Amino acid sequence: MPATMREGGRLVVVGGDAAGMSAASRARRMRPDIEIVVLEKSHDVSYSACAMPYYIGGVVGSRSDLIARTVESFRTERRIDVRLGAEAVELDCRRRRVRYLAAGTTEWVEYDSLVIATGARPVRPPLPGVELDGIFVLRALTDGDAIKAFVDSGGVERAVVVGGGYVGLEVAEALVMRGAEVTVVELLSTVLSSYDADMSAVVEKELLAKGVILRKDARVEGFEPASDGARVGYVVVGAQRLRTDMVVLASGVRPETSLAETGGIELGPTGAIRVDARQVTSEPAVLAAGDCCEATHVVTGKQVWIPLGTTANKQGRIAGHNAVGGSEKFSGVAGTNVTKIFDLEVAQTGLSEVGAERVGIPHEAVRITALSRAHSYPGGSPLVVKLVFESGTGRLLGAQMVGREGAAKRIDVVATAIYAGMSVGDLARVDMSYAPPFAPVWDPVLVAAGQAVKRLRS
Amino acid sequence: MPATMREGGRLVVVGGDAAGMSAASRARRMRPDIEIVVLEKSHDVSYSACAMPYYIGGVVGSRSDLIARTVESFRTERRIDVRLGAEAVELDCRRRRVRYLAAGTTEWVEYDSLVIATGARPVRPPLPGVELDGIFVLRALTDGDAIKAFVDSGGVERAVVVGGGYVGLEVAEALVMRGAEVTVVELLSTVLSSYDADMSAVVEKELLAKGVILRKDARVEGFEPASDGARVGYVVVGAQRLRTDMVVLASGVRPETSLAETGGIELGPTGAIRVDARQVTSEPAVLAAGDCCEATHVVTGKQVWIPLGTTANKQGRIAGHNAVGGSEKFSGVAGTNVTKIFDLEVAQTGLSEVGAERVGIPHEAVRITALSRAHSYPGGSPLVVKLVFESGTGRLLGAQMVGREGAAKRIDVVATAIYAGMSVGDLARVDMSYAPPFAPVWDPVLVAAGQAVKRLRS
Repeated sequence: MPATMREGGRLVVVGGDAAGMSAASRARRMRPDIEIVVLEKSHDVSYSACAMPYYIGGVVGSRSDLIARTVESFRTERRIDVRLGAEAVELDCRRRRVRYLAAGTTEWVEYDSLVIATGARPVRPPLPGVELDGIFVLRALTDGDAIKAFVDSGGVERAVVVGGGYVGLEVAEALVMRGAEVTVVELLSTVLSSYDADMSAVVEKELLAKGVILRKDARVEGFEPASDGARVGYVVVGAQRLRTDMVVLASGVRPETSLAETGGIELGPTGAIRVDARQVTSEPAVLAAGDCCEATHVVTGKQVWIPLGTTANKQGRIAGHNAVGGSEKFSGVAGTNVTKIFDLEVAQTGLSEVGAERVGIPHEAVRITALSRAHSYPGGSPLVVKLVFESGTGRLLGAQMVGREGAAKRIDVVATAIYAGMSVGDLARVDMSYAPPFAPVWDPVLVAAGQAVKRLRS
Repeated sequence: MPATMREGGRLVVVGGDAAGMSAASRARRMRPDIEIVVLEKSHDVSYSACAMPYYIGGVVGSRSDLIARTVESFRTERRIDVRLGAEAVELDCRRRRVRYLAAGTTEWVEYDSLVIATGARPVRPPLPGVELDGIFVLRALTDGDAIKAFVDSGGVERAVVVGGGYVGLEVAEALVMRGAEVTVVELLSTVLSSYDADMSAVVEKELLAKGVILRKDARVEGFEPASDGARVGYVVVGAQRLRTDMVVLASGVRPETSLAETGGIELGPTGAIRVDARQVTSEPAVLAAGDCCEATHVVTGKQVWIPLGTTANKQGRIAGHNAVGGSEKFSGVAGTNVTKIFDLEVAQTGLSEVGAERVGIPHEAVRITALSRAHSYPGGSPLVVKLVFESGTGRLLGAQMVGREGAAKRIDVVATAIYAGMSVGDLARVDMSYAPPFAPVWDPVLVAAGQAVKRLRS
């Protein structure tokens, strides 16, 4: 546990996005007396990475909408010394200091407590031609700027997105909205691999209906220039060359742990920084939060690495709290997520069947389709609800939902039930709301839970 | 507990709406061998009372959309002997038989088990002039037919709705959609009296914005005819006479217990039929379900009477199950409800502050307003979330939500938490979904729960 922060001590936070700025802000609320320094290697803090596909697609009209809070406001209102363009490169835990590069110089800053919130970095596979113009990743705000500027400059008739995870699919939608013919190349046999195949199949159908070309079980071997030589013109997929005007690499992210490793901070089995429930690393004065560190999965009790903005915000607050002498515990993650894929809401919490299999929990699953509104009321649409539960006990392990409406926040009902340790029988008994415009009298979640109860009894 | 149903025995169900037909259907699934008789005094079964305002308003286009399942299908597919126009008038528990009137004759039918599902009846206050033409209640499908036909026939420029509960407000909206100038007369000082005044105030603002005239703290004294003498022309409210072309009485409902009382079945303190958790009444062979009976409130453990379609369906299944020899328990109600009031979703679960006060639970409450989507994403709107929780322990007692989007199913998150016995601290720790089109990174429920935690600590 970190020592109580001394009067007028210094907290250093590395990383100025969700986790880092949450930590700094919470620390300031608790301790008006201390000095708080944030080192951010880019020139942006506290931006919404999740909204960047909508900015590229034109749904979010202004870049400033992506900024939750300006650096000026952090500096003046919260008295946080945010240093932009400051890349932390070395951690010296013994002397409690961090070395960083800024404007060509190198500086050491000492800390009483340190919060590492270095996030994750996109995987940029070392393939032939990957450095050509027109090949992008999407992680930093400047990545979003670059993609948007490239599309704005015209001439993008075809685009290839490498990776069919949710970032890849959101970018694919954005590029379709901008008029491109989009191909998604996915290494595996389904998109959205955290979902079971029966659920991602619903998403694939939507993608095809919207004109997206899907290449599954397909490995990208490299990139070749167009005739002008500098700009990407082809993506090599197996024996084929796909003509394209741009490429977005969305083949996943990895935890950014290099700074932590220079200080000898332990990593966990997932490759992310190991932390305890108080977000403290193997060094008592060093905490970590967000996409660079692990979390405990609420269903399995095991350490997992599921980088999500929601978790980054929660862990950031807890790390900031504990870095200045508090003692809050993080309650772990269920990996709850939702994404919009064209006209579909696609949502998930807890374990999939594949996930339950992987951790060796005997499980069963039910999948039902029900209307999102009463049958009498116009405009309803089918909502597919899948529940995964433990064999025998019926303990809820996870849920997946896909539909044109009603998935996004219904998933939180199951997430709440999972945190409460409910069984499918418990869930089936909850008094849920009904009115024709919003749900059938038997809510789809109740229908699924009822089916699960029958399955358990049979 | 009811005796096991003998081979080839007879189940009689009185009432053919949600509870009654659910009971009959469940009994049939369990027991293919028995005879099942349903006595329904009207000529409709299994209709959606909740959708009638939308039928009147023209949103639901066809009357057949209001029928969940036809009487023919119950007769042929489920072999249920549905007797329409059959009004049960006398219950003889000693000889296990029910007398009913049908087509001018009187008949006795014997039963091995009986399920009373007689529902509720609308209050028709005995005021001068209440029998004039153009004065309606809205409960049976034929009530909806009559209102719709009256409006369809033209000449309804002004309408008065007596009662500002959710049925009254839904009818008010329907009549506005049909072009009428609508006045809602409410006896109390707020509409939607199951909500706290700070929440119903948001609804009142919406009503006024849509042109509804609100008369609160106003008592209807009677009705007077228009110049032609047969049709209502004025509603007398205190010293005023409101000119009107029609009136809908939506001043509440009462449990329909007259049949039960003829058989000496005990009523509970609420005036509805007393049942145990297995839906069994004071007579072992007689069960009850739906709007005619009580239920246990999951928060207080006390018997309450909260007539809702969701509860009727659940209790109906359980009564049907237990009437033929099963032994299922009903888990009680939280009174979860949602309604659409023009462009607002208005939802509630558990106890309001007033409700907590009434049962003597020391409580506190927080109310927050947050956006329904990420601030970056267009189209979001303010969602007001109120949480009511027990002082000291923080145990969740109830929630109310009002907003243009996102209330209807978010309420089920809190309903689930209430069934799990969660505190506001437990709720604040749940991993809820986030994506810019659907929620801010801190979901409004988490924001409210976080505020509640702070309140508890202070």
